[in-house]
Amino acid sequence: MKNLLVVQSGGPTAVINSSLAGVISGGFGHSDKIGKVFGGLFGIEGVEQEKIVSLEKFKEGELLGLLKQTPSSYLGSCRKKLPDPQEDKAFFEKIFGILKKYDIGYFFCIGGNDSMDTVDKMSRYAKKIASDIRVVGVPKTIDNDLALTDHTPGFGSAAKFILNSMRQLKKDTEVYQVPSVVILEAMGRNAGWLAASAALANDSSMKACDIVCLPEVAFDADRFLQKVDSVAKEQGSVMICVSEGIRDNEGKYIMENEGVLKRKNDKFGHAALGGVGQTLRDLVAGNLGLKARSIELSTLQRCWSSGASLCDVSEAFDAGQKAVAYACQGLSGVVPGFKRIADEPYKMEIVPYDVREIANVEKKIPGSMITPDGFGVTEEFIKYARPLTCGEPELKYENGQLQFAPKVW
Amino acid sequence: MKNLLVVQSGGPTAVINSSLAGVISGGFGHSDKIGKVFGGLFGIEGVEQEKIVSLEKFKEGELLGLLKQTPSSYLGSCRKKLPDPQEDKAFFEKIFGILKKYDIGYFFCIGGNDSMDTVDKMSRYAKKIASDIRVVGVPKTIDNDLALTDHTPGFGSAAKFILNSMRQLKKDTEVYQVPSVVILEAMGRNAGWLAASAALANDSSMKACDIVCLPEVAFDADRFLQKVDSVAKEQGSVMICVSEGIRDNEGKYIMENEGVLKRKNDKFGHAALGGVGQTLRDLVAGNLGLKARSIELSTLQRCWSSGASLCDVSEAFDAGQKAVAYACQGLSGVVPGFKRIADEPYKMEIVPYDVREIANVEKKIPGSMITPDGFGVTEEFIKYARPLTCGEPELKYENGQLQFAPKVW
Repeated sequence: MKNLLVVQSGGPTAVINSSLAGVISGGFGHSDKIGKVFGGLFGIEGVEQEKIVSLEKFKEGELLGLLKQTPSSYLGSCRKKLPDPQEDKAFFEKIFGILKKYDIGYFFCIGGNDSMDTVDKMSRYAKKIASDIRVVGVPKTIDNDLALTDHTPGFGSAAKFILNSMRQLKKDTEVYQVPSVVILEAMGRNAGWLAASAALANDSSMKACDIVCLPEVAFDADRFLQKVDSVAKEQGSVMICVSEGIRDNEGKYIMENEGVLKRKNDKFGHAALGGVGQTLRDLVAGNLGLKARSIELSTLQRCWSSGASLCDVSEAFDAGQKAVAYACQGLSGVVPGFKRIADEPYKMEIVPYDVREIANVEKKIPGSMITPDGFGVTEEFIKYARPLTCGEPELKYENGQLQFAPKVW
Repeated sequence: MKNLLVVQSGGPTAVINSSLAGVISGGFGHSDKIGKVFGGLFGIEGVEQEKIVSLEKFKEGELLGLLKQTPSSYLGSCRKKLPDPQEDKAFFEKIFGILKKYDIGYFFCIGGNDSMDTVDKMSRYAKKIASDIRVVGVPKTIDNDLALTDHTPGFGSAAKFILNSMRQLKKDTEVYQVPSVVILEAMGRNAGWLAASAALANDSSMKACDIVCLPEVAFDADRFLQKVDSVAKEQGSVMICVSEGIRDNEGKYIMENEGVLKRKNDKFGHAALGGVGQTLRDLVAGNLGLKARSIELSTLQRCWSSGASLCDVSEAFDAGQKAVAYACQGLSGVVPGFKRIADEPYKMEIVPYDVREIANVEKKIPGSMITPDGFGVTEEFIKYARPLTCGEPELKYENGQLQFAPKVW
C-alpha cells in the first residue's frame, strides 16, 4: 500500500480542478492499492520545497463537487522546466527523497505541454533508479495544442466562453444603426484553436463571427482590410476574433511588426494602444473609417468556470480518474488521451498515450479546417469542436457568488 | 381600444429585454384596453423613420422566455437627445403623426437617464396638445445612477458579472508563488456603483477584492500606491477594481491627467498603453515593481446574460409589466421605480415616480457607503447591493450556445 501525490502545473483552466477531483476520487476509489491522498502545492517546485498537504478532507460530501466548479489550479502551479535526469541528478534525488518520505507510490501531474515534459523526465528517472513509483500525466490546456490526443481538457470550456462572448457581444453591437466592428482577442500563441472556436458562435439564425485571424495563416493587413470592408458593406457590423499569436508572412508576430504595419497602412497615423486586438482595431478605424472596438478577454477566458462546458468538466474528471486507474494497473510515463469514436452523436474513449509522444510537440489547426481565404473555419472544424462545448453543469451559487472549494490545508 | 408602442434606448444591458418582455406581456394581458403590440426599432429615431414592427408573434410559447435571456436591446437603440417641445414642435408633430397612424394610445420607452428625458418631453408634449396617449418610461442602466429609485434594472446583473469575474480572477491569480496585482476596469463614468460591486466578491472564506477606486473619491496616486503596497506586503496578490471615471482632486479624469501622473510617479518611465486600468497597472508595475495585469471588461459587462441575476431579470420584467398597468390606469409621464421595504430578507415594491424627478439627475454612491480611506465600501453598501445580484435564472442553451429570441420581423 503506497500513497498518492498529485500536483498541478502550467496555466490555469476552468476544469483543471475537475481533473484534480478525478485523481482524488480515483485515489479514494482504489483503496486496495492506494493509502493516503496528498497534494503538492505550486507544482513540482512546491514538492521540492516539501509543500505537501493532505487531501483526505475531500471524502466529505460536497467538497469534490465544489472542486469541480472551482477554476484555476486549486493546488497552485509553477512554470518550471525540469533538468535532464541524465545531467542533473541532484534535483531528482531531492524530489524522490521527498516522495520516499511520504511513501508515495503514485505521482500525478496535471498540466500542459511543459508538464508532460515533467512527467516524462520523472518517469524516466524512476525507471533508471528502478523505483516502483508510477508517474502519470493528466493533460490540460485551453490552447488545445497537445499532440496525439483528439483534444485537451480545458479547451472546451474556454472555447465556450469565447463563443458565448461573441454571441452576446454581437447582440450588444447591433443595437445602433451605425455599423461597427468588434475585435475579440483570444489566447493561443502558436495554435489558433481558441480563436477559431469563435466560429462556433454562429447558428442558422445568427452570424456572430465573421472573421477569424489564426496563427496558422500569415496575416496580411491589406487582405484583412479588404475582407473587413466587404463584410461591413454586406451586413453592417463585423465580428472578428483574433489570436494573440498571429504573424506576418515572415513569421514575425504582428505585435513586433506593428510599427511597420501602421506606417504602411494607417492613413490617419493614430497611435497603437495595446495588444494585437488594438492593432487590428487601429487598422480598421484608421483605414476604413469604421467605428471599431477591441476587447481582450485576457485571463478571464482560462478561468471562466461559470459558463463551463459539461462535456469538458466531465471529460476532465474522467481523465483524472483514468490516470489513477493506469497507475494502479502498473503503467508509468503515460497520459490518458482522448480518442474520438464519432462526431454525431459525439463519442470518445480514453486511451493511454506514451508521454514522450505528447511532450514538447505543438498541434496546430490542420489546413483542412481553415477556409481557403484563411479568415474562417470549415465544417470539419465545427464538427470537431462543437461537441466539446456542449452541456451546462449545474452550478452552486450562494448570495450571487459562484462557490468554490475552500482550502483544506 | 388603442395600440401599444414600445422602444428601447441608450446602452444595452443584460436585462433590458426582460423589461421589454414585461411590456409585451403586459400589453397582451390588458386586452380589454390594448389592441396590437408594436415595437419601434432603434429608439425614437426609428419611430421617426417609421421603423415600426409587430410584436404579436410573442404570443407564441417560448419566445418571451428567450427574450428574457437575450442581452442588449432587442429592438435596437439610439442616443438621441430630443429637442425641447416648446422650441421645436416639428419633431414632435412628426412623431405624434406616426403614433396616430398606428393608432397608438400607449407609448413606452425603456432606457436610462437620457431616455427618461425622452419620456418627459413626449409626455409633456402629449399633455400640451391634449393627446390621450400615455407615455411611460421603464428604467434601465448598468450604472445604477438614476435618482429616486432604490436601484435600476441592469445593475444587478452587471454587478454579478463583475463580482464573479473578480472571484474567478482571484483564483487565477493566486496559483503562482509570485505575488501579483490584478486590476479590473469597470464602467461608470460619474458614479462608482459598478466598480464598488466588485467588493461583493468577498465572502468569509475568500478575499477577492482588496481595493476599489471610485469616481466619488478623488484619486491620489501616492495614497493608491501606499495602499497597494501595504496589501501586497500583507497578503501577496492584490485584487483591484477601478471605475473608468476616476478623477484627481481637481476633478480631472485620470486618463486626461495620465501624463502628469506618470511624470510624477513612474520612476521607470514606461509608456501608458490603454485606459485607466492600464494607467494604474503601469503605476503599480513602475513604482512597486510588482507583476501587474489590467483587464478591461468593456462591453461584456453590460451584455452578459449568461450569468445574470435572477432578482434583476425578474424585477426588470415586473417593471415592464407595471409600466403597462400604470398606462392602463391613466398615468402618463411616470416611471415604475423601486422602493425598498427591507434588506434581509430583501423586499421591494414598485411605485410610480414622476419622470421629471428622475430625468437628468445622476445618483452617486453616498459617503456612508464608502470606507474612510476611500478604497473600500462599508457594510451598508454590501447590504444594499448584495440582494440585487442573487439568484440564477434557468437558461436555455443549445449546442453550447446561449439561445436568444429570433427577430420576429
